[in-house]
Amino acid sequence: MLYEINEKALKLESEGKKIIRLNLGDPDMATPPEIVDAAYASMKAGKTKYASSYGELSLRQKIAEMHGVKVENVVITPGSKWGIFATMFLMMKGGGNIIIPTPYWTAYELTAKSIGAKAKLLRTELENDWKVDLDKLENMIDKDTRMIILNNPNNPTSKVIDPETLDGIVEIADRKGVTILSDEVYGTIAFKKTKSIIEYDGNCRHILSNGFSKTFTMTGFRIGYIIANKTFVDQITKLNQITFNNVPVFIQDAGLKALEIGDKLSGQVKKEYEERAKLASKTLAQAGLLFSKPEAPFYVFPKKKGLDSEKFTLDLLDKGVAVAPGTAFGDYREHFRISLTAPRDQIKVALDKISEALG
Amino acid sequence: MLYEINEKALKLESEGKKIIRLNLGDPDMATPPEIVDAAYASMKAGKTKYASSYGELSLRQKIAEMHGVKVENVVITPGSKWGIFATMFLMMKGGGNIIIPTPYWTAYELTAKSIGAKAKLLRTELENDWKVDLDKLENMIDKDTRMIILNNPNNPTSKVIDPETLDGIVEIADRKGVTILSDEVYGTIAFKKTKSIIEYDGNCRHILSNGFSKTFTMTGFRIGYIIANKTFVDQITKLNQITFNNVPVFIQDAGLKALEIGDKLSGQVKKEYEERAKLASKTLAQAGLLFSKPEAPFYVFPKKKGLDSEKFTLDLLDKGVAVAPGTAFGDYREHFRISLTAPRDQIKVALDKISEALG
Repeated sequence: MLYEINEKALKLESEGKKIIRLNLGDPDMATPPEIVDAAYASMKAGKTKYASSYGELSLRQKIAEMHGVKVENVVITPGSKWGIFATMFLMMKGGGNIIIPTPYWTAYELTAKSIGAKAKLLRTELENDWKVDLDKLENMIDKDTRMIILNNPNNPTSKVIDPETLDGIVEIADRKGVTILSDEVYGTIAFKKTKSIIEYDGNCRHILSNGFSKTFTMTGFRIGYIIANKTFVDQITKLNQITFNNVPVFIQDAGLKALEIGDKLSGQVKKEYEERAKLASKTLAQAGLLFSKPEAPFYVFPKKKGLDSEKFTLDLLDKGVAVAPGTAFGDYREHFRISLTAPRDQIKVALDKISEALG
Repeated sequence: MLYEINEKALKLESEGKKIIRLNLGDPDMATPPEIVDAAYASMKAGKTKYASSYGELSLRQKIAEMHGVKVENVVITPGSKWGIFATMFLMMKGGGNIIIPTPYWTAYELTAKSIGAKAKLLRTELENDWKVDLDKLENMIDKDTRMIILNNPNNPTSKVIDPETLDGIVEIADRKGVTILSDEVYGTIAFKKTKSIIEYDGNCRHILSNGFSKTFTMTGFRIGYIIANKTFVDQITKLNQITFNNVPVFIQDAGLKALEIGDKLSGQVKKEYEERAKLASKTLAQAGLLFSKPEAPFYVFPKKKGLDSEKFTLDLLDKGVAVAPGTAFGDYREHFRISLTAPRDQIKVALDKISEALG
């Protein structure tokens, strides 16, 4: 339903309606001009040819340095979405199941379905601070379980997995021989330290997915990366060769520039989202909604007892505010997701309309 | 072996060796500056956000007009490669087989293998002017056959399918209920009229794959499109949503600019490649090689009796010329493929080295 809402929002806009779009994780801020100019300089320098399906060496080196891994552990992808699809596609060949804690990012289960893999959903609850129950996880793993997907920080809850729980998940996965795919696309701009899956094992037994979209407001550039063991990086590269071939080099050069000026940029981004999270938390609490305080951009995932979030979302869209129903993230009919990806004054207007619609 | 040769060529170059690269279909000419500037203007205008997984309406409209179909029949892809992968992935779910005439573009069989589909290879021969034998085709179709992939004009032979043979193939496919995927990425710049699969049926019973790379020297931009019936376009769009999401809008704007100035550009491209093809044909004939005269960019696919083309290709790479072994295109050990994607003086040097190595 997430994508349907978006296509409907785009359609309403194309008809001239004004929609405050808080339905996607697409920042309102502009891509920093240094990044745009780096892409242009690269195009003008003729970097408009086919290139390696691993990605550019310079960019892979920089990423490897940042994460303390080898260049051979890094492959560039057209967004982190592709890295996740490719990982699931390759790991789930021949069947098996994937454990996905919920609420989850919509694409995980859609991808599992698309490739014919079974998704086993491990429910977490607002009332338990969205913690993964380690006993439940261990019991859920069977002989056909190949992967666990973590989203840390989580979309839609903006919750960072606490280090003790993460230690426990990794311990279980290692003991049972199950691979973790950790999607850490909000990690760099989280409001608190997020422990990366790569910190557990320099040899990349588990897999990290990351992207440039959220950290550097580069959503429309479509660039991300996977960190994994060399064998798996080679497999992804072979899949890249027969699908999109390579991320345009000028986009990779833009990504490299983003990393070079990265600390400054991500600091600004983080600060702005922290302010927005405070603003939203205040208004939503006043409206009597239940939610956990965001620990990362961009989302709040409030709950209202008895809410039919799909109906609510569609009605709200007609009132000019797009949010996402909780059902897009698993069995969370009473929740909805607000993306704080608009200027504060618009967020304020939207939150008021939401409060009014719920009142 | 095609991609291995390329990665080896890139590696040799990174070590400082000079390689004349005639191994890929990557034009040496620069992307026209109007196209680069259109991408930059679009980026500066803030088109760096997530966008529709169908592609931008303006671009889809332009493409629909060109092909005489509806907008709903067009979906934008990151290169024609993705369109082909997506089509095979979606059509072959649950098994079945695909008929692929050989010699074929390497990615077709690799893709079939990757998604677990069976590829049935229909051999064509230089000695029979690379014609598909219609009786053989009809006999090869069984109850599990779902698709026929045509590459028209063909890579590696640069042969255009003559209209009578194409009529025959379509008639058989229609009668047997098999879908044709026609990859026409060299169609616009062919040296003779190439009949498009879309000309047979305005309702898009069959599927067209096309791209901007070859016509407008935009290989590194990664943009192409699929034309198909609405239901299938919707399916591809859903797959786009969970993989790369959308081709960057600024790249789509560059593509739109390319189409707007298209006739001028494609005329220039065509003329240059026709000259190169003449040059190559002359030298290769003098060297006593057998081949069919190219009817489209970029390739010649000569044959020498008794040649071990894999060994020949690797040896030639050490001498500074990269070409592709015939085995990359099916069971064509005595052939190799030369891409005429370098300036004429370099092609001349390379052809001389090839003649010498074969002599």
